[in-house]
Amino acid sequence: MSKLLKGRAKKVGLPPGTLVHIGEKRIEVTKITIIDYDETHLQERELEKIDECIPYKDSTTIKWINIEGISNIETLEQFGNCFGLHPLVLEDILNTDQRPKVEDYGEYMYIVLKMLYYDEKTNGIITEQISMILGNNFVISFQEGIKGDVFNALRERIRNEKSRMRKMGSDYLAYALIDSIVDTYFIILEKLGEKIEFTEEELVSNPTPKTLQAFHNLKREMIFLRKSVWPLREVISAMERGESPLFKGTTRMYLRDVYDHTIQVIDTIETFRDILSGMLDIYLSSISNRINEVMKVLTIIATIFMPLTFLAGVYGMNFKYMPELEWRWGYPLISLVMVSIGVSMVFYFKRKKWL
Amino acid sequence: MSKLLKGRAKKVGLPPGTLVHIGEKRIEVTKITIIDYDETHLQERELEKIDECIPYKDSTTIKWINIEGISNIETLEQFGNCFGLHPLVLEDILNTDQRPKVEDYGEYMYIVLKMLYYDEKTNGIITEQISMILGNNFVISFQEGIKGDVFNALRERIRNEKSRMRKMGSDYLAYALIDSIVDTYFIILEKLGEKIEFTEEELVSNPTPKTLQAFHNLKREMIFLRKSVWPLREVISAMERGESPLFKGTTRMYLRDVYDHTIQVIDTIETFRDILSGMLDIYLSSISNRINEVMKVLTIIATIFMPLTFLAGVYGMNFKYMPELEWRWGYPLISLVMVSIGVSMVFYFKRKKWL
Amino acid sequence: MSKLLKGRAKKVGLPPGTLVHIGEKRIEVTKITIIDYDETHLQERELEKIDECIPYKDSTTIKWINIEGISNIETLEQFGNCFGLHPLVLEDILNTDQRPKVEDYGEYMYIVLKMLYYDEKTNGIITEQISMILGNNFVISFQEGIKGDVFNALRERIRNEKSRMRKMGSDYLAYALIDSIVDTYFIILEKLGEKIEFTEEELVSNPTPKTLQAFHNLKREMIFLRKSVWPLREVISAMERGESPLFKGTTRMYLRDVYDHTIQVIDTIETFRDILSGMLDIYLSSISNRINEVMKVLTIIATIFMPLTFLAGVYGMNFKYMPELEWRWGYPLISLVMVSIGVSMVFYFKRKKWL
Amino acid sequence: MSKLLKGRAKKVGLPPGTLVHIGEKRIEVTKITIIDYDETHLQERELEKIDECIPYKDSTTIKWINIEGISNIETLEQFGNCFGLHPLVLEDILNTDQRPKVEDYGEYMYIVLKMLYYDEKTNGIITEQISMILGNNFVISFQEGIKGDVFNALRERIRNEKSRMRKMGSDYLAYALIDSIVDTYFIILEKLGEKIEFTEEELVSNPTPKTLQAFHNLKREMIFLRKSVWPLREVISAMERGESPLFKGTTRMYLRDVYDHTIQVIDTIETFRDILSGMLDIYLSSISNRINEVMKVLTIIATIFMPLTFLAGVYGMNFKYMPELEWRWGYPLISLVMVSIGVSMVFYFKRKKWL
Amino acid sequence: MSKLLKGRAKKVGLPPGTLVHIGEKRIEVTKITIIDYDETHLQERELEKIDECIPYKDSTTIKWINIEGISNIETLEQFGNCFGLHPLVLEDILNTDQRPKVEDYGEYMYIVLKMLYYDEKTNGIITEQISMILGNNFVISFQEGIKGDVFNALRERIRNEKSRMRKMGSDYLAYALIDSIVDTYFIILEKLGEKIEFTEEELVSNPTPKTLQAFHNLKREMIFLRKSVWPLREVISAMERGESPLFKGTTRMYLRDVYDHTIQVIDTIETFRDILSGMLDIYLSSISNRINEVMKVLTIIATIFMPLTFLAGVYGMNFKYMPELEWRWGYPLISLVMVSIGVSMVFYFKRKKWL
Repeated sequence: MSKLLKGRAKKVGLPPGTLVHIGEKRIEVTKITIIDYDETHLQERELEKIDECIPYKDSTTIKWINIEGISNIETLEQFGNCFGLHPLVLEDILNTDQRPKVEDYGEYMYIVLKMLYYDEKTNGIITEQISMILGNNFVISFQEGIKGDVFNALRERIRNEKSRMRKMGSDYLAYALIDSIVDTYFIILEKLGEKIEFTEEELVSNPTPKTLQAFHNLKREMIFLRKSVWPLREVISAMERGESPLFKGTTRMYLRDVYDHTIQVIDTIETFRDILSGMLDIYLSSISNRINEVMKVLTIIATIFMPLTFLAGVYGMNFKYMPELEWRWGYPLISLVMVSIGVSMVFYFKRKKWL
Repeated sequence: MSKLLKGRAKKVGLPPGTLVHIGEKRIEVTKITIIDYDETHLQERELEKIDECIPYKDSTTIKWINIEGISNIETLEQFGNCFGLHPLVLEDILNTDQRPKVEDYGEYMYIVLKMLYYDEKTNGIITEQISMILGNNFVISFQEGIKGDVFNALRERIRNEKSRMRKMGSDYLAYALIDSIVDTYFIILEKLGEKIEFTEEELVSNPTPKTLQAFHNLKREMIFLRKSVWPLREVISAMERGESPLFKGTTRMYLRDVYDHTIQVIDTIETFRDILSGMLDIYLSSISNRINEVMKVLTIIATIFMPLTFLAGVYGMNFKYMPELEWRWGYPLISLVMVSIGVSMVFYFKRKKWL
Repeated sequence: MSKLLKGRAKKVGLPPGTLVHIGEKRIEVTKITIIDYDETHLQERELEKIDECIPYKDSTTIKWINIEGISNIETLEQFGNCFGLHPLVLEDILNTDQRPKVEDYGEYMYIVLKMLYYDEKTNGIITEQISMILGNNFVISFQEGIKGDVFNALRERIRNEKSRMRKMGSDYLAYALIDSIVDTYFIILEKLGEKIEFTEEELVSNPTPKTLQAFHNLKREMIFLRKSVWPLREVISAMERGESPLFKGTTRMYLRDVYDHTIQVIDTIETFRDILSGMLDIYLSSISNRINEVMKVLTIIATIFMPLTFLAGVYGMNFKYMPELEWRWGYPLISLVMVSIGVSMVFYFKRKKWL
Repeated sequence: MSKLLKGRAKKVGLPPGTLVHIGEKRIEVTKITIIDYDETHLQERELEKIDECIPYKDSTTIKWINIEGISNIETLEQFGNCFGLHPLVLEDILNTDQRPKVEDYGEYMYIVLKMLYYDEKTNGIITEQISMILGNNFVISFQEGIKGDVFNALRERIRNEKSRMRKMGSDYLAYALIDSIVDTYFIILEKLGEKIEFTEEELVSNPTPKTLQAFHNLKREMIFLRKSVWPLREVISAMERGESPLFKGTTRMYLRDVYDHTIQVIDTIETFRDILSGMLDIYLSSISNRINEVMKVLTIIATIFMPLTFLAGVYGMNFKYMPELEWRWGYPLISLVMVSIGVSMVFYFKRKKWL
Repeated sequence: MSKLLKGRAKKVGLPPGTLVHIGEKRIEVTKITIIDYDETHLQERELEKIDECIPYKDSTTIKWINIEGISNIETLEQFGNCFGLHPLVLEDILNTDQRPKVEDYGEYMYIVLKMLYYDEKTNGIITEQISMILGNNFVISFQEGIKGDVFNALRERIRNEKSRMRKMGSDYLAYALIDSIVDTYFIILEKLGEKIEFTEEELVSNPTPKTLQAFHNLKREMIFLRKSVWPLREVISAMERGESPLFKGTTRMYLRDVYDHTIQVIDTIETFRDILSGMLDIYLSSISNRINEVMKVLTIIATIFMPLTFLAGVYGMNFKYMPELEWRWGYPLISLVMVSIGVSMVFYFKRKKWL
C-alpha cells in the first residue's frame, strides 16, 4: 500500500510543471505509432522522430497517435511542445499515480484512465495508466507499455473500411478507446468473482490461515479496484453531459452506454464487498461455533471421568479401617455405581443436546 | 456471484452495437404475439415472420408486440431494422445482465426491468430481464421466456372491452406492464419474510451449521434483490417526472402509484436487511453465552473434584508412617471432610450465581 | 415481519384502482360521523347512509367527516363517488400497508399517516393507518378503528365556541388531526425509553436469554417505528412549504411546529438506536469478560491441584524399592512440599492479578 | 434516556399554544432584569412587575431583558402579550425539551440554544435551555436558571463604555449571547477529553467492570452532546446567510466566527466518537488476548501433568504380577521417564511459542 | 486528544477579537522577512521593526512577507493595524487550533492551512498552522516556526530570474505556498504507509500487546490526519471556483492541480483507514483461531488421559476381592486395553481433523 505513493515524495519542493517520472519504469524505449484515416483513406506508420508528426498536425483527417513507454522525459517534452500541451498535462502524464479524471483545456481534453490486467503469476491486479489527449481531429494516447497491446482489436476495426469508426470523428475514436478500457474491467471482475467463490467455499469447509490470508488479499484488491473505478463514473458522466464541444451528440449516446457499463462495474464491486463482509461474519461465527463444540467435548469427558476417578481414588486409600474394602461384593457394587454415574451423565448431556 | 458476469467477457474487444447474447439461453424458439386494439376493436395473433409486423407499424391503433425468447439474434436484428431501433438498444436487449434503466431515444423510450420469480425447487430467486420499447402508439416487450406468462392477467384486461386499458394510449399499456412486474416483487418479499422468520426461530432455538448457511443465503439474496430494485426507483421517478412527452399527464398519476410501490419494496428490503443484521448479533451473542455456560459446567466439576481427588490421592500414598491411616475414625473423618468440601463448593457457586 | 406484507400479494395481477382491503380486518361495521361547523354554528350527527352526506358537500361551513372501519368496500366506493375521489385514492385507503405520504390531487389532498398505540397486553406497538382527504372546506378522515377514539379531545375543542378551531378553515382542522397523531408518538417513545432503561439494567446486572430476547424485540420495534416516522418528515415538510393552496399561511406556521415535533421524534428514535447498539457492545464485552473470569477460576484450580495430585500419585506407586516411603519423616516432608507448592501457586496468581 | 421525554406526554391532546411547563422545575421564582443602553447611556434594573417593561418597549435604545426561571406560566403569558409574542413561541419557551432552532416571525426572531454545564458532583453534563427573542432593538433571553449567571462577563462588557457592544445594535447583542453559549462547549469538551484519556489508560492497563461502565457513560454523553450541538450548525448558518434583515452585515461576519467554532466543536465530538469506538475494539481484542493467555497456561499445566499422573496411577495398580514393581531400578527409572516427559513437553511449548 | 483543545477554554467569556495565543508556544522571537520582487527586480531583507514594512505597502511589486513565531501578541497587533486586518483575522492567526478554511474579506483573503511534519523522535505527526493573507500584490504568511524552513525551495525559485514565479502575481505566489504545503502530506503518507505495512506484518505473524498499541496509534493518527485534510478540499475548491477576483484565471488552472493532489491525499487516507479496519478483523479472527487451536490441544490431552487415569485408578483400589488383580495376565491385558483406548482416541481426533 505504501507502494501507492512511492516516488511521489521525489517531487516535493519542485515547481509545478517540472517533469519527473513517478511510478515503476515499465519499459525503456518509447514507441510512437500513428494511424491517419478518414472514410476513404488509411495510413499506418511508426515514427522514428518526434518531428515527423508535425505534418500530420493540421491535416483534416483523423489521427490516432499512440505512445508506448513514457519514461523518456525529453521525447515527451518535445512532443508536448509540438502539440502545444500545457506543462501541467505533461506532468500528469508522467505521474502514473493519478486518479481517473478529465480536464478541459479548451482546444483539447486531457483524460486519464486506468487499464487493469490480471496477473496470473502473482495472482494480483496490475494497473496501467492510460492518458489521452482528445483534440478536434486527433487523439493521442499514452501507455506505460506493460503487456502486448490491448488496442489491437480497435486497430482492426479502423482498418476495416466499412466500420463505423471510419465514418466518425476523433471523439468517437476517444470513446472507442475508453470503451475498450472499461471492457477489460469485466474480465477482472470475473476473475475476482471466481476467487471469491473459491475462497468462500474454503472458508466454510476447511479454513486454514492461508485462506484467511487469501480473503484478506481479496478485500484489499477490492479496495484498490474501487479506488480506480469510482472516479470513472464522474469522468464519463462529465463527458456525456457534453460540457465540451469536442464531444458531439452522436458520440454522447455511445458515452451513455459506457457510463452504464461503469455503473454496472461499480455495482458489482459493491456487491462483492457486501459478500466479502458477509463472509467474515460467517467465518467468525463458525469459529465461535467450533470453539463451542471443542469445549463441549472437553466438558463431557471431564464431567464423566472426574467423579469416577475420584471414586476410584477413594477406594485406593490405605486406611486400616475401611469396611467396604472387606465386603465380598464391594468391588462389583462400586463398579455398578461407577457405570451408573457414567450412564446418567451421558443421559444428562443427551438431554442438554450436547451429544 | 461470478455467475453475475459470466459471458460478459465474450464481448471484450468487439465494436459497440455488436449483437451477442449474454446470459443463459432460456428458450430457443422466438415467439412473437401481437395485440392490436383501440376502444372499439381488438385483434390478437401470433406472427410467423418478422415482416408481418410491418403493416401494423404505422396504424393509429395501440399495438402490443410481445417477443418471448431473445436468443435468436437474426430475428431480433430484422425486428430492430423494421422498427428503426438503435443498434445499442438491440445490444442491450440481448445482454440480459443489465441493471434497470430507462433511456429516451426521442421517438421511443427503452426501458429495462427485472422480473423476479421464486423457484420452489432451488429455494432461490430467478431473474428474467424484461425489455420494453415504448413508442407513440406501440409497446414492444422482450421476455427471456422462462416461466408461463405473467402477462396473461393483463391480456385478459385488454380483452375486456370496458376496461380502462382500452380507452388509454400506449403509455398506459407500458405502465400496466411495469405495474405487473413490480407487483411480483411483493410475492418474493412475502416468501423471503417467511424464510427470515423461519431461520430466525431456528437460529435462536436450535442452530445448526445448516441454519447458518440458510442465513447466509438469505443475506446474499437480499444483496441481489437490492441490486435489482434500487435502480428501479430512479427509473420510475424519471418517467413520472414526465421528461418525455411519451408519458401523458393522466398516466403519470398511475406512475406515481407504481413509484410508491417501489419505495415500499425498497423499504421492506432495507427492513429485512436490518432484521438480518440484528439476527447475526443475537446469534453471535448467544453462542458466546453458550460457551460461557459450557465453561461454567466444566469449571464447577473441576473445582469440586480436583481437590477431592487430590485428598484421596494423599491417603493413597504408601508411606510407612502415616498416623492418620491407623486411626479408627480416619476414614469416616476424611469422608466427612470431603463431603463438606464438596458442599461448600456448591454453596460458593450458588452464591456466584453459576448454579 | 412477513406480516408486513401479508395479503399484499392478493392484488397481484389486478388492474390499478381495484378495491381490495389489505391488512387485518379490525372492525366490521363502518361508522360515519359528521361535524359541521363554523364560527357561530355547530352540528354533530352520525350518518346512516352515504347519501346523507350529499347535502353537506357544497355548503361553505367546515365539515369533518370521520369514517371508522374501512373493511366495507361498497360503502367506501359509494363515498368515493359522492366526493369525486380518484380510484387510486380509494385503493390506497383500503391498503393499510402504506407508508406515510401526501399526494396533491388539485382539488383535494390525500394524506396517509400512522397512528401508534402501545399494547400493554402484548407489550408491543400497534399501528393504525389514518387516511385524510383535505378539501377546500372539508376534511374526511378514515380510521381502521381499533381502540376507543383518539380524536375525542379534538372534538371537545371544536365544541368549545371560543377555541381557535372554530375560527379557522379546514386546513387548520387537518393540522389539528396530524398534530394529535404525532403527539401519540411521544407516549410510545416514553414507553420504549422505560423499556430500554429496564432492559439495560438487566443486561448489565443479570442477563438471561429472556433479556436478550427483550433486547432483540426492542431493536425490532425501533426498526418498525423508524419506518413509520421517517417518511413523516418529508410529508409534513412538503405541506409546510405550502406547495398546495389548500394550506394557508397562518396554518403553515402551525405545521412548522408539527414539523419540529417530528424532527424531535426522529432524533429520539436515532438516539435510542445508538443507545441500543451501544448496549449490545457492552453486553458482548461483558460476556467475554465473564468467560475470562470463569477460565481463570478453572485454570487456578487446575494449576494448583494437578501437580499436587501427581505428587500424591507418585507416592502411591507400589514399587518395592522406594526409599522415601520408609523414611520416618517422609510423609510430613512431602506434606510440607505440597503445601509450599500450593502457597507459591497462590502467590504466583496474586502477582498475575488473577486473584 | 427516557428522562429525555418525561413530561412531554402531558401535552398530548391539548390544543397548540397551550402553555405547559415541560422539564424539571429548576427554580420557582422568576427574576427579570433589564439593561437599557446605547453608545452614551446605560441603565440597569430589576423589574418587579411585568407592566414595568412597557415603557421600554418602543424606545430606540438597545434593551436586554433577561428572565431567569420560566416555571411561572402566568408571568410568561403576561410578558408574551406585552411584547406581542406568538402563542407557539411561548409554548416552545416553556418546553425545555426543544432542539436548537431558529424561527423567523417577521418582526422578531425566536432562537433556542442549549447551555451545557459540567456537574462535578454527578460527573455528568447538565443542559439548560436558553431561549432568545431578537427584535429590532431588544433582546429577550429566557434562562431556566440553574447555576449562577454565565452572562456576567457579558454584562461587564456592556458596562464598559468603550466596548464594541455599546456601539452596535441588538443583533450584535444576540451574537454575543450565542457566542458565550458556544464558548462553554469548549469547557465541556476539555473535561470529556480528560475523561476519555483517563478511561482509555484504565481500559488498556487494568480494566474493571467499573471502567466499562465509565466507557459506556462516556459514549452516552457523546450521543447527547451530539444531539445538542448538531442542529446548532444549521441554526447559526441560517442566521449567517442573513435571510432575516434583523442581522446586519457587520454582525454577520461575527456570526461566521461562531459558525467556525460550532464546526470545530462538531469536529471534536466526531473525533471523540471515533476514538471511543476505536477503544472498544482495542478492549475487546485485549480480552480475547487474555482469554487466550489463560487458556495457554491451563493447557500447558494439563498437558504436562495429565500423562505423568496417569503413569503414577499405572504403577499404583495392585496387580499381583507387575514385574516392574519388583525391579531394583524401577522407581528411579520411572522417575527418569517422568522427568523427561515433563522436560520435553516444556520444550514443545517453547517451540510453539506458548512459553 | 484533549490536547486538541487545551488552552481554548482560556478565551471563554472574552469579547471576540481579543488577542490570546492558543496552543503551544513554539518559539519566542518573531522573525519578519520580506521578499519584494517583480519580473526584473528582487530585494530580500529581514525587518527589525514593523514600521519598516509601511513603505512596501502600496508599491506595485509583489511582496511576500513571512512572519515566523506568532506568540508575540503586540507585534502582531501592530502588523494588523499597518495592513488593516480585521480583529477576527488576528484572533484566528493566534489561535493555532483552527481547521483549514478560507475567508474572503473583500480586499484580502485569509487562508488557514496545516503543515504536517513527521517527528522521528516521537514517531508521531507534528502540526504547524500556516496562516496566509493574500492581497492584491502581497502575500503575508504566518508560521508558528517549528522546524527549519520548508519554504526555502520556494525562495530559490523566486531568486531564479527565469522562473514562472517572477512573471506572475501574488495569487500565483499564494498558490505556490499552498502547493508546497500539500506536497508535504505525501511524505507523511509514505511514512504512514510504511508503518501500516510493518504493523500488519507483525499483527499477522507475531502480535504482542505492543503491536496492538502501535495499531491503535496508527488509527488515531489517521483520525487526526483526516481532520486536517478533509476541510482542505472545500477550501481549495472554493478558491478554484474563483469566487474572489484575487485569484486570476491562469492561476486557477494551477489551483485545479493542487485540488487534484488534495483529492489524492484524501483518497489515500480513506484507503489506509479501510486497510486498518480490515487489519483488526483479521487480527480478531486470528486470535479466535488460536484460542480454538489451544482448546483443541487441551481437549485432546484430557480426552486421552482422563479415561486412562480412571482405569489405572480402578485397579489401584484396595478391595479385597478383585479377581482381576490375581490373574496372571491381568496387567498385560489392562495395558493392552489402555494402549488401544489411546490409539483409538488419536484416530478419532484424526478423523475429526483436530490433529
